[in-house]
Amino acid sequence: MSPPLSVLFVTLAFSLHCVIISASDPDPVQDFCIPNPRYGSIRTAHLAILPCKNSSEASVDDFVFSGMQSAGNFSDTGLAAIPVNPTIFPGINTLGMSFIRADLKVGGINPPHFHPRATEISYVVRGSVYSGFVDSGNRVFARTIEEGEVMVFPRGLVHFQMNVGDKPATIFGSFNSQNPGSQKIPAAIFGSGIDEELLEKTFGLSPKEIGRMRRKFDPRV
Amino acid sequence: MSPPLSVLFVTLAFSLHCVIISASDPDPVQDFCIPNPRYGSIRTAHLAILPCKNSSEASVDDFVFSGMQSAGNFSDTGLAAIPVNPTIFPGINTLGMSFIRADLKVGGINPPHFHPRATEISYVVRGSVYSGFVDSGNRVFARTIEEGEVMVFPRGLVHFQMNVGDKPATIFGSFNSQNPGSQKIPAAIFGSGIDEELLEKTFGLSPKEIGRMRRKFDPRV
Amino acid sequence: MSPPLSVLFVTLAFSLHCVIISASDPDPVQDFCIPNPRYGSIRTAHLAILPCKNSSEASVDDFVFSGMQSAGNFSDTGLAAIPVNPTIFPGINTLGMSFIRADLKVGGINPPHFHPRATEISYVVRGSVYSGFVDSGNRVFARTIEEGEVMVFPRGLVHFQMNVGDKPATIFGSFNSQNPGSQKIPAAIFGSGIDEELLEKTFGLSPKEIGRMRRKFDPRV
Amino acid sequence: MSPPLSVLFVTLAFSLHCVIISASDPDPVQDFCIPNPRYGSIRTAHLAILPCKNSSEASVDDFVFSGMQSAGNFSDTGLAAIPVNPTIFPGINTLGMSFIRADLKVGGINPPHFHPRATEISYVVRGSVYSGFVDSGNRVFARTIEEGEVMVFPRGLVHFQMNVGDKPATIFGSFNSQNPGSQKIPAAIFGSGIDEELLEKTFGLSPKEIGRMRRKFDPRV
Amino acid sequence: MSPPLSVLFVTLAFSLHCVIISASDPDPVQDFCIPNPRYGSIRTAHLAILPCKNSSEASVDDFVFSGMQSAGNFSDTGLAAIPVNPTIFPGINTLGMSFIRADLKVGGINPPHFHPRATEISYVVRGSVYSGFVDSGNRVFARTIEEGEVMVFPRGLVHFQMNVGDKPATIFGSFNSQNPGSQKIPAAIFGSGIDEELLEKTFGLSPKEIGRMRRKFDPRV
Amino acid sequence: MSPPLSVLFVTLAFSLHCVIISASDPDPVQDFCIPNPRYGSIRTAHLAILPCKNSSEASVDDFVFSGMQSAGNFSDTGLAAIPVNPTIFPGINTLGMSFIRADLKVGGINPPHFHPRATEISYVVRGSVYSGFVDSGNRVFARTIEEGEVMVFPRGLVHFQMNVGDKPATIFGSFNSQNPGSQKIPAAIFGSGIDEELLEKTFGLSPKEIGRMRRKFDPRV
Repeated sequence: MSPPLSVLFVTLAFSLHCVIISASDPDPVQDFCIPNPRYGSIRTAHLAILPCKNSSEASVDDFVFSGMQSAGNFSDTGLAAIPVNPTIFPGINTLGMSFIRADLKVGGINPPHFHPRATEISYVVRGSVYSGFVDSGNRVFARTIEEGEVMVFPRGLVHFQMNVGDKPATIFGSFNSQNPGSQKIPAAIFGSGIDEELLEKTFGLSPKEIGRMRRKFDPRV
Repeated sequence: MSPPLSVLFVTLAFSLHCVIISASDPDPVQDFCIPNPRYGSIRTAHLAILPCKNSSEASVDDFVFSGMQSAGNFSDTGLAAIPVNPTIFPGINTLGMSFIRADLKVGGINPPHFHPRATEISYVVRGSVYSGFVDSGNRVFARTIEEGEVMVFPRGLVHFQMNVGDKPATIFGSFNSQNPGSQKIPAAIFGSGIDEELLEKTFGLSPKEIGRMRRKFDPRV
Repeated sequence: MSPPLSVLFVTLAFSLHCVIISASDPDPVQDFCIPNPRYGSIRTAHLAILPCKNSSEASVDDFVFSGMQSAGNFSDTGLAAIPVNPTIFPGINTLGMSFIRADLKVGGINPPHFHPRATEISYVVRGSVYSGFVDSGNRVFARTIEEGEVMVFPRGLVHFQMNVGDKPATIFGSFNSQNPGSQKIPAAIFGSGIDEELLEKTFGLSPKEIGRMRRKFDPRV
Repeated sequence: MSPPLSVLFVTLAFSLHCVIISASDPDPVQDFCIPNPRYGSIRTAHLAILPCKNSSEASVDDFVFSGMQSAGNFSDTGLAAIPVNPTIFPGINTLGMSFIRADLKVGGINPPHFHPRATEISYVVRGSVYSGFVDSGNRVFARTIEEGEVMVFPRGLVHFQMNVGDKPATIFGSFNSQNPGSQKIPAAIFGSGIDEELLEKTFGLSPKEIGRMRRKFDPRV
Repeated sequence: MSPPLSVLFVTLAFSLHCVIISASDPDPVQDFCIPNPRYGSIRTAHLAILPCKNSSEASVDDFVFSGMQSAGNFSDTGLAAIPVNPTIFPGINTLGMSFIRADLKVGGINPPHFHPRATEISYVVRGSVYSGFVDSGNRVFARTIEEGEVMVFPRGLVHFQMNVGDKPATIFGSFNSQNPGSQKIPAAIFGSGIDEELLEKTFGLSPKEIGRMRRKFDPRV
Repeated sequence: MSPPLSVLFVTLAFSLHCVIISASDPDPVQDFCIPNPRYGSIRTAHLAILPCKNSSEASVDDFVFSGMQSAGNFSDTGLAAIPVNPTIFPGINTLGMSFIRADLKVGGINPPHFHPRATEISYVVRGSVYSGFVDSGNRVFARTIEEGEVMVFPRGLVHFQMNVGDKPATIFGSFNSQNPGSQKIPAAIFGSGIDEELLEKTFGLSPKEIGRMRRKFDPRV
């Protein structure tokens, strides 16, 4: 590779990450800022975020998301989640919000998890959903929520959902961060590679039991 | 009235407003803070916000809102809106979010308005809704949105909706402020009592035309 | 164009917009950050914001603005406004403030408008100015302000001004955002291309009346 | 009780909670605000936060914390933690920071937990501490940290510590929130009363195994 | 004093400070919040901030400040400053801005000082003012500013002014905090009672020289 | 130099500064963002901040700082300070915190200074340290702090330290900004080049005395 080009890639990498950093959730300083898909494939791993469009090139389609009119793919626990952030809906970049569609099969669960950077407003579009969260004092607030009801999960607190009705359930959740983040408890604890002695002492489980959990949640084991 | 009592009322008024002030939208410093309905009727004009519950008295019902399972009352323009903020859903106090259910009759409109303090994520639960907003350069971004689609209205920009389908439409909107505020253009301009000469010069309308607008939008005229 | 160059332009466009995004109004994390005019003309459409200077290259002139010692050009409504943001005063970039000089001819008006992202402190340098704003409840707060008086327009609320004295008026306004934005009501509503049916229903005006308004405020009609 | 007094208590309760709400972590608007211990016992359950002192009554002792010169009481896992927030160190109220002293016996652990509202800077005062956190992609970042080294735990991410040296360890942690909050994974999941069916499905454990975990972590079982 | 009354005063003191705490500079969550002067004298030392008005009782006069149409009282250094914050202009409470009028006699100075919580936009209404600030690297940015020019002083940095013209000068400064605070260097260092040995070592001055400075700046010496 | 390359350098400079701007202290929108040392020497003057690593390339060592296990170099006043910000500890970039190790010889001082952008939590690791700060009303809050005690210095206020014990002292300070900034009073006032007439009037010193101070603190004199 010729010297100019190698420097070029450095620059490119830098700039791309730069947008990630700068898309902070406080007040925006312009009407909007849409990453420009013309400059590359928006799903390319290394180029997750793309340059902003000149505002004169923005169109109404940049501000409409049409990719969640039907349910996504279901996981083992009966959950199909379509989290929508600027990576797949560029128009919300810098606007301080994002959202998710979650479908639950009958009996399906959304395991305990939390969003490090956002409160969630959870609106039940259809179905009956046992929903709840745990506060800092280890107290659970949970009950079944029906169609048209809304539950709030305060920022950073562990919460969970289970379809307790007899038909599929659909939930629309919205967040006050463009990238709320998510840590799923079983995978973060047993699927991440935390030292096994520490896990044994944490849960009072035997090495064999911890091993079973790790085989279940750690894709590398 | 005896002296002690008169001082007492001062104190009470002060405290109530104090919560309004302090419920700021930045990061909360506790898990949650629910105004306590035990200390008065939550809809009493002068006592709009009530003291917080001790967190040990909070229950799951404080975090679930059940008051928008059906449409609200329709206005002349065919809009039924149920805005949900801490006044009617105390559990979201200090959590930085609020939401709204809006129903539109066939042909009904949500007139141009804006929210001074929030971005809005607008999810079409059912129906076909012409939706749009105007940016700082007076350019409109508008099109028809179908069931399951989402449009974002950037913070503080004028936006509007019209049911262009052949059945009623329902929209679930969420905001990244617990009190986004709302200014409806016709009423704020023609229904607020702005000097008529200024309005004539602004719109190039005659005194008679301005008078017609004021009679339409100003409840006092 | 050779491949390396095409990639290069992508990078450049990206970086420039990047600064726009990142110049957020919360606390700065350095003393200051002056976009560097050496790297291009500051008024070039596509390159509105330029790279920051190395702080050792900053000089006192970067922090002084001298472009509003006299009034700007007057509009049809008798208003001459010089809004000052980082595009023309790079030294305020990232510092969370901007300002404006507004001059009004005798009888001139600053039509109803609002700033989506800032409160405004309006100081009357000379003249007598009818000034006011409308709150969320459609109540107007307005009166004539004299030389040396100050009025505050709360963030995001519609406000307006009219010179009611017998000599020219000058106003110095300052904002708590480096880019407060501005939506002028007549132009945003009648000059942006919102669907005419929706406007008719909003204002109760006939198609002919709406057409007259659009011809007045929409430069494309 | 006489009517005036009953109203009085309402007011008092209100005001106290009000400070809790308002002590938000963004920029303070005064030099400092020390809750005033003169108006009640600072540890009284219902009056956790007290009125602020007049600034003229503040003294240097309000800004110095002396209660962590030695280790606290050790838990079953060999951890002694002294979290310091405005409840026990009123002088930091509204200043956006708090801190903790944590001591670990040889082999002791600080189980996986996270702080919903803060980043943590963890400084090893003495000892050898295996320390780490898990990111949103379930990847662990962990290693042993020696005396004088510092590790950062990004906001809201699960982290943990274990004394892997042959002598007691002491850690000084600081946070960028006056009340970072804390959720301990075993207790929040197994000790809070989440529906057992949901836990079984989450972890793939039998009712009997879940029961064992609940008996270990739920003080009510 | 009767028991009810004594409790009453506690409550009142608490509430007043509460507003001080809660008037944080981030986004407001209501249109405005005006402390209510009806409930006491606004200049009473202990009751510096008063209860908010019910918004229906607010009037336009609450949002206009008329107390700086002429210069204030001049100090020994030829400076007359009228700082305007919510204590004397209640209408700006919670709106994130405040301002100041400063007049300088010929040759008068505004000694080096800084505002811990705000950037300042300094507009020269009349006169010629040598103005400047010092950055974190101890570099000064200073020059003479003429009528109609504006200089920005970045948040938290030491700045100063001197009238170098042959007539009185008037400056209008605005801040992006409702209470920017101010530390004047000579008084904060030599007039506050810092240990003399530390001051001697800081400046390389003799005890006698430090004594002379303290007599000049410390009102208690 | 060929044309492509010259454009390239513009881009590079821009991007680097861009990260500085965007690394604001409000809520991050990703788990972390580590500037990538592979793309240049991290201490190069012009390239102070480097591109972020792809998160998959981050390792635990990025989040551990090992450069302050022993004291730094001592100044004339007996102070050895190692301020740690993203320039030397890239892993804290965007996380809203930074820290410092300060060692004081017996009798050594940390002269009066302030941090424009952060509160400081100051923990005495060993020794006896006279510590204090001055509030906006020129009142000093100071006393001797012993090993294991903590003092808080509110944001933006002047503070200072002196080792009053008979052995070396070590302090660990942490900040709620990734770049708190620092202005040292003697150097900012006497070592920056502020107009001498203004300094004479400020302190009531003769030109000769000011000259002596400038020779002591201004490296250019």
